[in-house]
Amino acid sequence: MNSTDSKHFYFTAETTSGGVVQHDFTMGEVTGALWSPETGADRAPLVLMGHGGGNHRKSPAMVGRAQRLVADGGFHVAVIDAPGHGGRPRTEHDEREIAAMQRAMAAGEPVGEIVVRYNGHLAERAVPEWRATLDALQELPEIGTEGPVGYYGLNMGTAIGIPLTAAEPRITAAVFGLFWYDDALAETARRITVPIEFALQWDDEHIPRPSGLALFDAFASEEKSLHVNSGAHKELPRFEADSAVRFFVRQLRRS
Amino acid sequence: MNSTDSKHFYFTAETTSGGVVQHDFTMGEVTGALWSPETGADRAPLVLMGHGGGNHRKSPAMVGRAQRLVADGGFHVAVIDAPGHGGRPRTEHDEREIAAMQRAMAAGEPVGEIVVRYNGHLAERAVPEWRATLDALQELPEIGTEGPVGYYGLNMGTAIGIPLTAAEPRITAAVFGLFWYDDALAETARRITVPIEFALQWDDEHIPRPSGLALFDAFASEEKSLHVNSGAHKELPRFEADSAVRFFVRQLRRS
Repeated sequence: MNSTDSKHFYFTAETTSGGVVQHDFTMGEVTGALWSPETGADRAPLVLMGHGGGNHRKSPAMVGRAQRLVADGGFHVAVIDAPGHGGRPRTEHDEREIAAMQRAMAAGEPVGEIVVRYNGHLAERAVPEWRATLDALQELPEIGTEGPVGYYGLNMGTAIGIPLTAAEPRITAAVFGLFWYDDALAETARRITVPIEFALQWDDEHIPRPSGLALFDAFASEEKSLHVNSGAHKELPRFEADSAVRFFVRQLRRS
Repeated sequence: MNSTDSKHFYFTAETTSGGVVQHDFTMGEVTGALWSPETGADRAPLVLMGHGGGNHRKSPAMVGRAQRLVADGGFHVAVIDAPGHGGRPRTEHDEREIAAMQRAMAAGEPVGEIVVRYNGHLAERAVPEWRATLDALQELPEIGTEGPVGYYGLNMGTAIGIPLTAAEPRITAAVFGLFWYDDALAETARRITVPIEFALQWDDEHIPRPSGLALFDAFASEEKSLHVNSGAHKELPRFEADSAVRFFVRQLRRS
């Protein structure tokens, strides 16, 4: 069985709360969630979201951002668990890299190099899964193939989102951030020309300022914005999620 | 006659349009404008705005930002003409510095050093005028002395706003941007601890990136945000004015 064959796309659960419908789905080995407006969902734009490392499709950040995007933007929002995340099996390679990260963190050593290397590897596995998921989502009558598609992912969601956005012409706007400059990743970012918004933390204890600024600089997008906030890596202000909603409203609801 | 005596504060004209009341005022030699909500203005927070070099209190940027702040934030908004601006008399010193700027621009030479020097001089004249204007505005019954005060100024509005905000404890939040790093100005910025939002243009033909970033870095504010956008010096996107309104709503309408 091909794990990314859209014929194997199934909804597995549905709940509704506060005007937002949440569907869980599987597509072969891939597990995901889709949030949609309870009314007015027909052919609304779709925002794909990538979660951070060690996290999963229904982490609080994903659920909170999805609710804002649905309630304030009227979008469909889809998240899939990255390989080795959200209960998906880990390979020996995954286990080895995760152990290396944990050792570096415990020793107070810089983790950037390991994260960049491991997330680059995960991106190679995740990009085809994302593209097949997008195929399947666009077969749903309430989404369709005509509407614009956005991508929103920070941390590992950026490491996967940059190659995905570079490879996927259906994605026409993206929000990235909180990731390191790396020659290979920047080379990929230089192929991205769609409008982007990029977030970084001025006092990030893991990502040096010049590294975050250089990754933002790499995007070839004529229209790009950088939002820097004071605070540590995990202190991204909540209002940046609202800013992302407004960005997608500007970009995906252009007449 | 003391040109900054609040006893000499007079309204000279009043117009109302789209729910916004615009008052012109004079205070001694200083000319200004005050925009207020037609209803619900009582004791609303006050935002002071500084205009850019060569501009004046009712330039399109000032009127547009004032209308947004009144309509979307319910604020009072006041602008005064900087010394030598908006019909106010120029000194010999003003004429000499303006001629030097124009010569540099015509020759395609960097203007930063002249602008920084001249705007620093203007700030010394403008700060006491601003403080006296604030005294007078707070004597108006619809403003009063209890409400919070913000400051919003880019370009020369930042060169004047940084020393004003550092000197004026009544200002509790500020939006700055589009100005050069300078040792003296940065020294003043290091005394500012109130929340700030700071805008810079990534492709600014006048202000080098490291210069704008270094000025942002200088503020001692625990809570500070930087908004960078692609584009040249004069291409600041309109949505940054909406962002400033949201910033002041967050900061000045905290319960």
